[in-house]
Amino acid sequence: MSERLNQVSNIVEESATKYNVCVVGSGNWGTTIAKIASENCLQYSDSEFNELVKMWVYEEEIDGQKLTEIINTKHQNVKYLPNIDLPHNLVASPDLIQTLENADIVIFNIPHQFLGNIVKQVLAHCEKENIKFKGGLVNKDCIGISCLKGFHLDPTKGVTLLNDYVTETLDIPCGALSGANLAPEVAKEKWSETTVAFDTHNNPNVEIDHNTLKKLFHRPYFHVNVIDDVAGVSVAGALKNVVAVGCGIVLGLGWGDNASAAIQRIGLSEIIAFGKKYFPECSVETYYKESAGVADLITTCSGGRNVRVATAFAKENAYAMKKKLPTKSVFDIEKEILNGQSAQGIITCKETHEWLVHDKSQDEFPLFEAVYHIIYEGANMKKLPEMIEDLQGLEVPESEDSE
Amino acid sequence: MSERLNQVSNIVEESATKYNVCVVGSGNWGTTIAKIASENCLQYSDSEFNELVKMWVYEEEIDGQKLTEIINTKHQNVKYLPNIDLPHNLVASPDLIQTLENADIVIFNIPHQFLGNIVKQVLAHCEKENIKFKGGLVNKDCIGISCLKGFHLDPTKGVTLLNDYVTETLDIPCGALSGANLAPEVAKEKWSETTVAFDTHNNPNVEIDHNTLKKLFHRPYFHVNVIDDVAGVSVAGALKNVVAVGCGIVLGLGWGDNASAAIQRIGLSEIIAFGKKYFPECSVETYYKESAGVADLITTCSGGRNVRVATAFAKENAYAMKKKLPTKSVFDIEKEILNGQSAQGIITCKETHEWLVHDKSQDEFPLFEAVYHIIYEGANMKKLPEMIEDLQGLEVPESEDSE
Repeated sequence: MSERLNQVSNIVEESATKYNVCVVGSGNWGTTIAKIASENCLQYSDSEFNELVKMWVYEEEIDGQKLTEIINTKHQNVKYLPNIDLPHNLVASPDLIQTLENADIVIFNIPHQFLGNIVKQVLAHCEKENIKFKGGLVNKDCIGISCLKGFHLDPTKGVTLLNDYVTETLDIPCGALSGANLAPEVAKEKWSETTVAFDTHNNPNVEIDHNTLKKLFHRPYFHVNVIDDVAGVSVAGALKNVVAVGCGIVLGLGWGDNASAAIQRIGLSEIIAFGKKYFPECSVETYYKESAGVADLITTCSGGRNVRVATAFAKENAYAMKKKLPTKSVFDIEKEILNGQSAQGIITCKETHEWLVHDKSQDEFPLFEAVYHIIYEGANMKKLPEMIEDLQGLEVPESEDSE
Repeated sequence: MSERLNQVSNIVEESATKYNVCVVGSGNWGTTIAKIASENCLQYSDSEFNELVKMWVYEEEIDGQKLTEIINTKHQNVKYLPNIDLPHNLVASPDLIQTLENADIVIFNIPHQFLGNIVKQVLAHCEKENIKFKGGLVNKDCIGISCLKGFHLDPTKGVTLLNDYVTETLDIPCGALSGANLAPEVAKEKWSETTVAFDTHNNPNVEIDHNTLKKLFHRPYFHVNVIDDVAGVSVAGALKNVVAVGCGIVLGLGWGDNASAAIQRIGLSEIIAFGKKYFPECSVETYYKESAGVADLITTCSGGRNVRVATAFAKENAYAMKKKLPTKSVFDIEKEILNGQSAQGIITCKETHEWLVHDKSQDEFPLFEAVYHIIYEGANMKKLPEMIEDLQGLEVPESEDSE
């Protein structure tokens, strides 16, 4: 009898230490990270995690059927990640509040411009029910992991990292996950790496540690390094998309691999300078040593949505200008090329520009500024080299058109 | 009369400060850099440089005509840089000694395995004529600029940078030029950047300064940054080719952009670690801030000979292994793919391996070692992730095949 009691007590104790994981978002990257988390929650369901992983899906109808129903019966996200089988312990829900209930780890993975609205909905619910988010809706030791790429901009407060915005609004510590992770390749289980950041030093009372986070995200095909530098990971993740827009521009002009590499080099320098200036707690090493730094920059600049949209923008508008036809806005191009998804770099380059104007620091970030002026204000793309060149006081010949 | 004397004296004085420039080598990169130098020697022929630029060409016959004659009449290097017009002040010579006579700046741009033989020829001539190289064959303030990529290996002395090898053997200070410079794109005058390094601090008596070097190499389409860190530029230029071989392997296996970016990230870390360990005078910033560092790594890994040879090696041998057919050596593949040119990374990965074995430091450079073992010893390419993964003591699932 006492043995049976012990057994039950062990089970209860064990279950008390198991974490509930949920994902907010279901685009191609959101669904991919949900797949990974679900695989690991299944693998470690005896020890670290509860098996069930809930994924919030913005409901829409596909051929008369709800997307959540398709995901839960066919176990594929036919709209945003077709032909990839999802684990059966991953359950889609159109109900944001239900998804978050009792969560210990909330993974945020939506286009970053929707974050403000998500937070509002959650806080309105908590106010109506007279509960707190932390310890009311989600468990009291809950943490967030942001896979979001971008900034939160407030005209009065300036620029805020999205993980900090989550902490400020929802009162939970928030880390970040970012790396050289083009979603279609990760979804197909091709080998890649990522960086997960969670600041254990400034959150000494949080139970979830680097080891738990490694178990949640590391897969045989998805190699994880866990570090403390959340700000570095977030800054790199946001700004690489602006650099990728710059690469798309030079590739669209037909300038080749050397030019693309030059943009990436200058971009990395400006990312590091931005981090040093506005988030001095960042480590420079994060930018050149981690997957979230230089590797993510490289893979984002070699493919992905930002490059594709900017390449088409440059190619079509260069042709239009030559033929004196009307040019297209970047938003027209985005609609034509991406199946309802967005190129984060287009938004982030505007946010970055607005912040630099507010801070009167445009001169220190010539590449970020050049990309903004080309994309939003019709600046001459072919003048990009002069716009970013530091002549260092030396007398050199005038630039001509490189084409 | 005194006015006339003054004029003549001015001309003589001016002419005394003008530098003679020559290029040793005429492959696609050698011819491209000769084109750039010739354009600038013409542009600054009133002030800094004498107009004539001599280029040493390894003589060969093309359809019964000598390559030097073709270059000097057609003003194109039809074999190694076809369809690119060369300035008429660039003169090709099959005579190495004649090319070097009275030089102030010697640009070395040959496959690095031929450097030892070039030096031997020059020293034999000097001995025979009983002259010194410096102040005998070339002018007494002559410097070298190495565009070479690789190491000089001596079983007893270990690894030597090629610029140091030039200084040790020919007794002239030697800098380096390296950057994100795929030759065909630079030759077509598409915008790119490069880094020129010359150590003015340790050569205080040398007349040629950073300003002169900027004038010799900077073009509207070829943006130059001049720095002091010769060792950093040389280390990065040599080892990036090994990383590119690694990228070619994962691309040949069809693993995609994330995997290629991961290899570049790990490669950059190993380049920095190699520099710190063996050339502590290097600046870490050179690797992540200069065109010769991260940008050259990116462009070399996105195209170029090393990637092409290694991609074909991986693809063909993966297929052969699957079908139990005989595999091909990397040298067979190189011959099939490159028109008589060589992929420097294939040689450099062996040199690096031999040095690491000599120094008993293989464990510190798992990527460089993995590339060597795959290319030369038939190691299983699909195990590359495990060969380079640092599991950091965490318990994670066993890796499976990523494909």
